[in-house]
Amino acid sequence: MTNEITIRKSEHIKLCLTDQVLGEGITTGMESVRLVHNALPELDFDSISLATSFLDHKLKAPFFISSMTGGAQQATEINRNLAQAAEHNGWAFALGSTRALVEDKSYRSTFQLRKYAPTIPIIANLGAVQLNYGFGVEQCKEIIHETGADALVLHLNAIQEVIQTGGDTNFAQLLSKIEHLCNSLTIPVGVKEVGWGIDGATALRLRNAGIAFIDVAGAGGTSWSQVEKLRSQDPVRKAAAEAFVDWGISTVESLISVRDKISDAPVFASGGMKTGVDAAKAIALGADAVGFARSILREATTSKEQVIEIMNTRELELKMAMFGLGSGTIADLKKTDRVIVK
Amino acid sequence: MTNEITIRKSEHIKLCLTDQVLGEGITTGMESVRLVHNALPELDFDSISLATSFLDHKLKAPFFISSMTGGAQQATEINRNLAQAAEHNGWAFALGSTRALVEDKSYRSTFQLRKYAPTIPIIANLGAVQLNYGFGVEQCKEIIHETGADALVLHLNAIQEVIQTGGDTNFAQLLSKIEHLCNSLTIPVGVKEVGWGIDGATALRLRNAGIAFIDVAGAGGTSWSQVEKLRSQDPVRKAAAEAFVDWGISTVESLISVRDKISDAPVFASGGMKTGVDAAKAIALGADAVGFARSILREATTSKEQVIEIMNTRELELKMAMFGLGSGTIADLKKTDRVIVK
Amino acid sequence: MTNEITIRKSEHIKLCLTDQVLGEGITTGMESVRLVHNALPELDFDSISLATSFLDHKLKAPFFISSMTGGAQQATEINRNLAQAAEHNGWAFALGSTRALVEDKSYRSTFQLRKYAPTIPIIANLGAVQLNYGFGVEQCKEIIHETGADALVLHLNAIQEVIQTGGDTNFAQLLSKIEHLCNSLTIPVGVKEVGWGIDGATALRLRNAGIAFIDVAGAGGTSWSQVEKLRSQDPVRKAAAEAFVDWGISTVESLISVRDKISDAPVFASGGMKTGVDAAKAIALGADAVGFARSILREATTSKEQVIEIMNTRELELKMAMFGLGSGTIADLKKTDRVIVK
Amino acid sequence: MTNEITIRKSEHIKLCLTDQVLGEGITTGMESVRLVHNALPELDFDSISLATSFLDHKLKAPFFISSMTGGAQQATEINRNLAQAAEHNGWAFALGSTRALVEDKSYRSTFQLRKYAPTIPIIANLGAVQLNYGFGVEQCKEIIHETGADALVLHLNAIQEVIQTGGDTNFAQLLSKIEHLCNSLTIPVGVKEVGWGIDGATALRLRNAGIAFIDVAGAGGTSWSQVEKLRSQDPVRKAAAEAFVDWGISTVESLISVRDKISDAPVFASGGMKTGVDAAKAIALGADAVGFARSILREATTSKEQVIEIMNTRELELKMAMFGLGSGTIADLKKTDRVIVK
Ligand SMILES: Cc1cc2nc3c(=O)[nH]c(=O)nc-3n(C[C@H](O)[C@H](O)[C@H](O)COP(=O)(O)O)c2cc1C
Ligand SMILES: Cc1cc2nc3c(=O)[nH]c(=O)nc-3n(C[C@H](O)[C@H](O)[C@H](O)COP(=O)(O)O)c2cc1C
Ligand SMILES: Cc1cc2nc3c(=O)[nH]c(=O)nc-3n(C[C@H](O)[C@H](O)[C@H](O)COP(=O)(O)O)c2cc1C
Ligand SMILES: Cc1cc2nc3c(=O)[nH]c(=O)nc-3n(C[C@H](O)[C@H](O)[C@H](O)COP(=O)(O)O)c2cc1C
Repeated sequence: MTNEITIRKSEHIKLCLTDQVLGEGITTGMESVRLVHNALPELDFDSISLATSFLDHKLKAPFFISSMTGGAQQATEINRNLAQAAEHNGWAFALGSTRALVEDKSYRSTFQLRKYAPTIPIIANLGAVQLNYGFGVEQCKEIIHETGADALVLHLNAIQEVIQTGGDTNFAQLLSKIEHLCNSLTIPVGVKEVGWGIDGATALRLRNAGIAFIDVAGAGGTSWSQVEKLRSQDPVRKAAAEAFVDWGISTVESLISVRDKISDAPVFASGGMKTGVDAAKAIALGADAVGFARSILREATTSKEQVIEIMNTRELELKMAMFGLGSGTIADLKKTDRVIVK
Repeated sequence: MTNEITIRKSEHIKLCLTDQVLGEGITTGMESVRLVHNALPELDFDSISLATSFLDHKLKAPFFISSMTGGAQQATEINRNLAQAAEHNGWAFALGSTRALVEDKSYRSTFQLRKYAPTIPIIANLGAVQLNYGFGVEQCKEIIHETGADALVLHLNAIQEVIQTGGDTNFAQLLSKIEHLCNSLTIPVGVKEVGWGIDGATALRLRNAGIAFIDVAGAGGTSWSQVEKLRSQDPVRKAAAEAFVDWGISTVESLISVRDKISDAPVFASGGMKTGVDAAKAIALGADAVGFARSILREATTSKEQVIEIMNTRELELKMAMFGLGSGTIADLKKTDRVIVK
Repeated sequence: MTNEITIRKSEHIKLCLTDQVLGEGITTGMESVRLVHNALPELDFDSISLATSFLDHKLKAPFFISSMTGGAQQATEINRNLAQAAEHNGWAFALGSTRALVEDKSYRSTFQLRKYAPTIPIIANLGAVQLNYGFGVEQCKEIIHETGADALVLHLNAIQEVIQTGGDTNFAQLLSKIEHLCNSLTIPVGVKEVGWGIDGATALRLRNAGIAFIDVAGAGGTSWSQVEKLRSQDPVRKAAAEAFVDWGISTVESLISVRDKISDAPVFASGGMKTGVDAAKAIALGADAVGFARSILREATTSKEQVIEIMNTRELELKMAMFGLGSGTIADLKKTDRVIVK
Repeated sequence: MTNEITIRKSEHIKLCLTDQVLGEGITTGMESVRLVHNALPELDFDSISLATSFLDHKLKAPFFISSMTGGAQQATEINRNLAQAAEHNGWAFALGSTRALVEDKSYRSTFQLRKYAPTIPIIANLGAVQLNYGFGVEQCKEIIHETGADALVLHLNAIQEVIQTGGDTNFAQLLSKIEHLCNSLTIPVGVKEVGWGIDGATALRLRNAGIAFIDVAGAGGTSWSQVEKLRSQDPVRKAAAEAFVDWGISTVESLISVRDKISDAPVFASGGMKTGVDAAKAIALGADAVGFARSILREATTSKEQVIEIMNTRELELKMAMFGLGSGTIADLKKTDRVIVK
């Protein structure tokens, strides 16, 4: 089974390096968010600070690398590049699914990234549905131990599992299992989608079950029905996947809806995030941090230096947007009234 | 006259296999209906049921094949493929117009499909306007007897009849004749359009006359003014038809308008339906079942197996949409509040 | 001067046979008017009547040919074709500007069309601004006498006159001169624009001055700034004209605005009208008749038969639209509630 | 340093002569402003007057040349062409940044344009941020003395300074320094943006600090992040600049917002203004005068005559728009109710 995971993960990377995996007929919604320029910011640009706190840790910028891959040869290199760059720039780093780590000891090393990233928050990742397929508190403790993770995020990917041949599609009674897990682990447990977003009502159900943070992972970026469509050999599944090319809640809608319901826990924005201006919009709309997946994948396959350059770019963009709004800190940006949703 | 019908029907099939018959400047409206993704469905995908009732019969899925053709050689094969596939997948099957059956006994066999579809509901079809051209209770009884139909649907196609050379264009006093027919037959009598939709007020008039069900057959799919434009030899009619390329009430508008007025009889959605996601939207908006015509015509001309494959695709799409909404049954889907019309 | 008019008029015809004279960034607004299809019209198509009254005359259809040309060789033929066709189909016929008729007797014959159109209403045409340039009651009486016109329409074309080299641009105090004219002539005097529309307030000023009818001649069809731009040799005027390519009130906006203010006099819709469906929309919005200019110009340059064919097409389209709405007469269509402006 | 300025200014001119410097995904908003045509203006076109007052001076037309360049060889010629044309047509003339004038005496002559433009208002220009980098009352007095300017406008260009290598990015405490300057100079001191607009709240802060006029210089025309992106050698800055391609408040939004807050001081509209129709819209929305920069740059590099021709075109367009609205004076135009913002 883990060998199958390895092949799948390699195909995911290969496909996600192309534009075929983008949704159509749906966007992040960022184009309908306008930041109102402040012509006289009354700030020294050099004094602007991106520092923020993230799950009781400190970040140099309100950014994290969204869960991408783990397992497989290529993943080892990608993950090292990402970990080293995240450490360098002080971003949080979310690992890809750590399921393989439990199922096959030979993959452990690809997830052992603490050595490259000693000080930043590392977040381990697991499909929530695995709680119906043999994963429980014990396995999660193992994952945390092996990765040295500061938090665990469970991904919700119902539509993807159906399209994937042999996908795990029993999502029944997951909420109580998630609740049990939250109560049993000492590190914070959060949830994320994988690109179809979370709505406020669902976020509230999860928060009431003990979830410590929500990453909306909304629609408008990578579409996992498109990814699995491209991989599928079954004509019915392949055709059906196509009908989901515009499925999901856009990142902006999702963020607004979740933030509206959740005021006592961090909400992260991801899904199709491309620039620091997108990040500024998300934070102005209430996000606590912003995640990037596919838009840094190419750099991740190249070198640590390339990842750092793109991180620097995102940071400069955010800083410039803050300058253009007159917000000197992330806390200021969160409170700005210079944001309009059309 | 029936020979003329045969030629016409063959031309219809041929033209409908091309994209020239699509309307322009009008859509089904499905693109403005959004289903709000539920990231945590709390369902086992395998437990989702598409079963529903349809005019007091049971269907395995809330789907029917919309009235297409009858009469002519090619029709025999098409109809057999459709009937066998519908039986296989447990869909309802609406025949094309059975007018030829009455007018010329040599066409009877093309409509005798009960042998291929012993258990599913079969719906016979007739132009409502024929009630002004020699058809009455007697002829309808003959149609029902020969086809073994469980229901009769009358199509309303005023605009088409005008463009068609020699079309039957006297639609005066039809309502009372429809009322008489409803009172005189023992099986349910419904109405449908052919792609220009029905509005709520008209649906109510028909319901008050005794109609048992309404199939909106709205605009956004096959445009019968385009079909007849392509067939016409008369330059004035040909040019005039072009002005109707965006005529009609879109399927979504029609469905909402009819459902708003009709709460005590089934309302079916058809007209440009392409996927099970469209079907999920229609059911969430109140449709009892969803019909497909042109989008399965190509498969119908090929083989029973091809039709079954496309039926399986539509079913998987609907099931996935229900999974993505957290609706385990068609009854649940009908009650969902996860639908937004922009 | 009249020779100059002749050359100008020929250039107008030549240019208006191309698509270069269309406005850009503005439409008639007809695409935002929806007619709500009535699936069960309860009418015999053959019983639908297009007959209507027009300035106390009877028309077989609620249509008129908008003022086009007069003067010049080519105009003679165009006008004969139009007059004969209008007589044949029972439309009203508006002449092009009859200014040349007064200024040079050699052009009289091109305007003497009564012989070709003995029974239909003929409307003579003059630039309102000419009332500031030597035209008065006497000249108008001469025009009426020579043309045998049943009505006179004054065109308002301020923007055009500015772009035209040597245009007549003194529009001061015209209202009182129009009032004087209305009081002095025995036939009805109306006003029209030439493709930039009239607003309700202006229409009311004119109605209070004694104007008997208003033809909105709105934007979305022929743009006279474009026509004059193409003719101009002066670089400043040529460039300035381009800035007016989207100028004006659209035909739909203009019609709604004027109808709202004028309830006791006929309001005609013209400007970019292309089909009988456009006409149905205009009448449903309150127009008493609908005019076509450029969209029949090509046929007018060809033959009477071509003009009749296009007239038949417009009539069939209107009749079909009325069938599709269930309106059996023009009076019914005017009262329909099956019209929505988005 | 001034040599660096010279090279920079030359690159600015070269780049601004291409279309690469336009923003994307943002417009001036002028396309959503509609002027309601008045078919019967009751005006003599020749009597329409464009005359207006501008900072207590008289202008023949409500137009000014927006600050462009100064310093460098090419600038000398451009500035002379502009100055002579502005004098000829009676427009106001805003100089480009006069910083070089203070920093290096060899550039003085390029700013000494009074000899070419003895009677019109000349406005000197300086980056507001320079008040944090060595410029104060004394330097401004020198600038005014050397240029013979009637007013001084401070430009706010925070985003541009960040992208520019070595840009001056300390915008802290500028407001009080601006206030001090306003109190210390005898000529009026205004502010402008450079293409990202000013909002009402910021305008009010500036007005309360003593600013005498506001030029919104909104988004939709030249984008200075694009200009600096094209110049930048630093990959991070170059990439980050791209994210600002749609940054800013559109000229229309900015004008409405500022006019709403500022009723006791002149408000000028600029940023992407292309025609006299744009100008008419801006004035109808409350602007006191309208400025053009890039849209006359090409002519400015050619000859005085070319500049005059384009000025004549803008004037004719405005006059035609006023004719089409029935506004005989700029004061009338300002009060018109014939303007709609969609
Ligand atoms: C190559 C690749 C692998 C991914 N693997 C995982 C994964 O293992 N676990 C997970 O929760 N999300 C995974 N994701 C989803 C991302 O975390 C993210 O939610 C999604 O791609 C949307 O963000 P984007 O538009 O920025 O790519 C993966 C994404 C990519 C591009
Ligand atoms: C080839 C073909 C033949 C049809 N024949 C009939 C018919 O005989 N009777 C009828 O009521 N509708 C007929 N229709 C109309 C369909 O039932 C349906 O209402 C219409 O095509 C709109 O649905 P669609 O967009 O899914 O094609 C026919 C449609 C097609 C494509
Ligand atoms: C060739 C041509 C000549 C015209 N000449 C006149 C004219 O003499 N007087 C007038 O009032 N309008 C004249 N018009 C304007 C039309 O009457 C009409 O108002 C305008 O073209 C808008 O209608 P359309 O879009 O259907 O062309 C002329 C139009 C055309 C195409
Ligand atoms: C070549 C060029 C040079 C400019 N230099 C200055 C300047 O020195 N100072 C300033 O305030 N604005 C400067 N600007 C900005 C303009 O004044 C104006 O605000 C901006 O370009 C937006 O107007 P536009 O879209 O009409 O070009 C310059 C613009 C151009 C095109």
